[in-house]
Amino acid sequence: MGFKETKTVDYVLNEAIKYVRHRPGVTEVPISEALYKYLAEDIVARFDVPSFNRSAVDGYAVRSIDTFGASPTNPIILRVIGFMSVGDDPGKYVLGPGEAVEISTGAPLPINADAVVMYEDTRRIGDYVEILRPVPPMGNVSRRGEDVRANEVMFRRGMRLLPWDLGVLASMGIYRVKVYSVKVAIVSTGNELIEVTETPPDGPPPGKVINSSRFVIEGLVKSLGFDPVYLGIVRDNVDEIAEVVRDALERYDAVVTTGGVSVGKVDYTVKAIMKLNPEYLNHGLSIRPGRPNSIAVVNGKPIFMLSGFPVAAATGFDVLAKPILLHMVGGEDEPKPIIRGILTRRVSTPVNTRSFVRVRVYLGKDGRVYVEPLALTGSGILSTLVRGNGILIVPENREGFDEGDEVEVVLIRPIYREG
Amino acid sequence: MGFKETKTVDYVLNEAIKYVRHRPGVTEVPISEALYKYLAEDIVARFDVPSFNRSAVDGYAVRSIDTFGASPTNPIILRVIGFMSVGDDPGKYVLGPGEAVEISTGAPLPINADAVVMYEDTRRIGDYVEILRPVPPMGNVSRRGEDVRANEVMFRRGMRLLPWDLGVLASMGIYRVKVYSVKVAIVSTGNELIEVTETPPDGPPPGKVINSSRFVIEGLVKSLGFDPVYLGIVRDNVDEIAEVVRDALERYDAVVTTGGVSVGKVDYTVKAIMKLNPEYLNHGLSIRPGRPNSIAVVNGKPIFMLSGFPVAAATGFDVLAKPILLHMVGGEDEPKPIIRGILTRRVSTPVNTRSFVRVRVYLGKDGRVYVEPLALTGSGILSTLVRGNGILIVPENREGFDEGDEVEVVLIRPIYREG
Repeated sequence: MGFKETKTVDYVLNEAIKYVRHRPGVTEVPISEALYKYLAEDIVARFDVPSFNRSAVDGYAVRSIDTFGASPTNPIILRVIGFMSVGDDPGKYVLGPGEAVEISTGAPLPINADAVVMYEDTRRIGDYVEILRPVPPMGNVSRRGEDVRANEVMFRRGMRLLPWDLGVLASMGIYRVKVYSVKVAIVSTGNELIEVTETPPDGPPPGKVINSSRFVIEGLVKSLGFDPVYLGIVRDNVDEIAEVVRDALERYDAVVTTGGVSVGKVDYTVKAIMKLNPEYLNHGLSIRPGRPNSIAVVNGKPIFMLSGFPVAAATGFDVLAKPILLHMVGGEDEPKPIIRGILTRRVSTPVNTRSFVRVRVYLGKDGRVYVEPLALTGSGILSTLVRGNGILIVPENREGFDEGDEVEVVLIRPIYREG
Repeated sequence: MGFKETKTVDYVLNEAIKYVRHRPGVTEVPISEALYKYLAEDIVARFDVPSFNRSAVDGYAVRSIDTFGASPTNPIILRVIGFMSVGDDPGKYVLGPGEAVEISTGAPLPINADAVVMYEDTRRIGDYVEILRPVPPMGNVSRRGEDVRANEVMFRRGMRLLPWDLGVLASMGIYRVKVYSVKVAIVSTGNELIEVTETPPDGPPPGKVINSSRFVIEGLVKSLGFDPVYLGIVRDNVDEIAEVVRDALERYDAVVTTGGVSVGKVDYTVKAIMKLNPEYLNHGLSIRPGRPNSIAVVNGKPIFMLSGFPVAAATGFDVLAKPILLHMVGGEDEPKPIIRGILTRRVSTPVNTRSFVRVRVYLGKDGRVYVEPLALTGSGILSTLVRGNGILIVPENREGFDEGDEVEVVLIRPIYREG
């Protein structure tokens, strides 16, 4: 009994990805609804940004040639012919020789001006200004096109849109963008499951378990910027599971199932997916928790068969589903916060297995960072992800770490203070 | 001209926070809509999770006392009286002495069973099973309450809800939670501004600038799990700005303005806020970019007066608005991804100023991580946040870093490969 042989995550990902040919749908949204979505198009600038030469400081717009040789002991005097505010038309003033225009940061340079002298380098006397230092051509000027040049490709397909990206798009005159709309169906399987909304106040009936994995997977799908579609609980029946998944594959971009992948007599989900003639199927993975996590590809679309235990399911989502879903939109995983700390207790893990150990990271009274492994008896212990704040990943080629080892931990919450 | 004296970020935050007495509204939402929100209540477990003793493995449920002394050479033979599936009622079988029940992972233990022997330690012979190794009481059993105990406080007010937290809430039988609903008004000021939707295809009219900061601030507010409410563009007029902000303060939890805080003649926003009799006001900050960023508190609610330049505004939001908004909900800032790399070029920054230098982080062909500062002539250059992928923060007590120095960088996107 048990898995005769499980494969490494990297091997399975490499194999499975070859069969994932489906590309998700594309939808056009206003930029204010595009945060954290993945672009489905390259974006080219239509015009220069800024669209005119503007002052980078508060001071006096001048013809730079008029300032040559100026010094505090030998100032050059220019006549001030007006004030240029932000929003003014550049044609408001035309500078003649020996003339200056007072100017605000961001205001356009008047015609014939090619530089700005900062207030600090001037002395105002009535309608005149003394220039105390020379300024080179284009000195203190934000040039037309210096932020974005017309015809430049500013964004590539697959880029995830962050807050400042929305600002750049707006400044390029773009207010609608094409992004990927990825709909991920979630199917929970298991005779033991009941919905939280149907649970009596004093807890589930004998032998029953609240379907919590559904919410974990929904949250993980959303955190990628994709849309989860929950299809409900299916009983442990091969035909029923096959039918629900077949239907989901027609309507959605990917399917995540939970449950029915453990070893032994209850391997319903894998048997169900076999009936759908997958191009690819791998049962079991060399990770812990999450050994039963499996993947199949049917008609170019991925089916992630995750453990019914929520922590194992979350781990499986992270290592299997996330990279493949990102691949479907040409996206890359975001950088993760990593912290180094000293392990307070030995951690033993099985060899040839990538282990994900939940830990509590805290700043000791001595100012050093400590990493305390949380006791766990099974992958069902979801609360360690609430009490803990980090995950120690032990690679396949190690059997753990010793007490006192310095280890790297992925932080999922802020570190705790003291002990 | 210029700020005579600006204060450090830490000083201003410490002062301002004393005056922020307003607490945002609380709203009850289904847990599937609570992702990344901040809890407005402590949450106590009503019942044990799991709510029954269940098997942690596939095998045979037994009375542990019956297995004492078992060994491969001297197996103990038990009679198998049935099969216990997940979802079955624990009362399905009552174990007598010398009896066993085959059991799946996650299934409840039958009555009188107190341990499970894994398949690996058994040999099945018809209706009987040979036990090859003894199992202690509660061996291979996930005990009732081992994940969450009844009456335990599992979540504290101010916790940000992450994907697995939603699963823990569900497993506790909780499907609606009280979270903070923080509405942040955004007011853009500036005669030069036009909306992106009103911009001609070939770019803004002479002297005009598309309002891009609005989208940056909207995105930053959303990234905290709060709700931005955009109130439009207000011209550079002290009375108009004061009126819009006064109205916004009555309806929303905080106000962010952009523009009208530069030095010199165009200090409209600060003058407008002065008219609202603030309990606290600080004009200018020792950061770069973002020196004009300011903060006031009126009737216990914060007003963040940010630069009209989007990068300076984003920096101001991060250092001023974010900590104060998080304080209002009792939340903590999320850990940030940090990477160490070698600086490819000297960076000079003003002393007594916290400088935020946009950089490009890449993995060199030699396998080392390099940090390349991006040329920038002003805080208007938003595109460096698209081309770059990190921010090097130079603290107040340094005047920069030398070429070749190892520096820490906050990563905002994945690192680039090669050079």
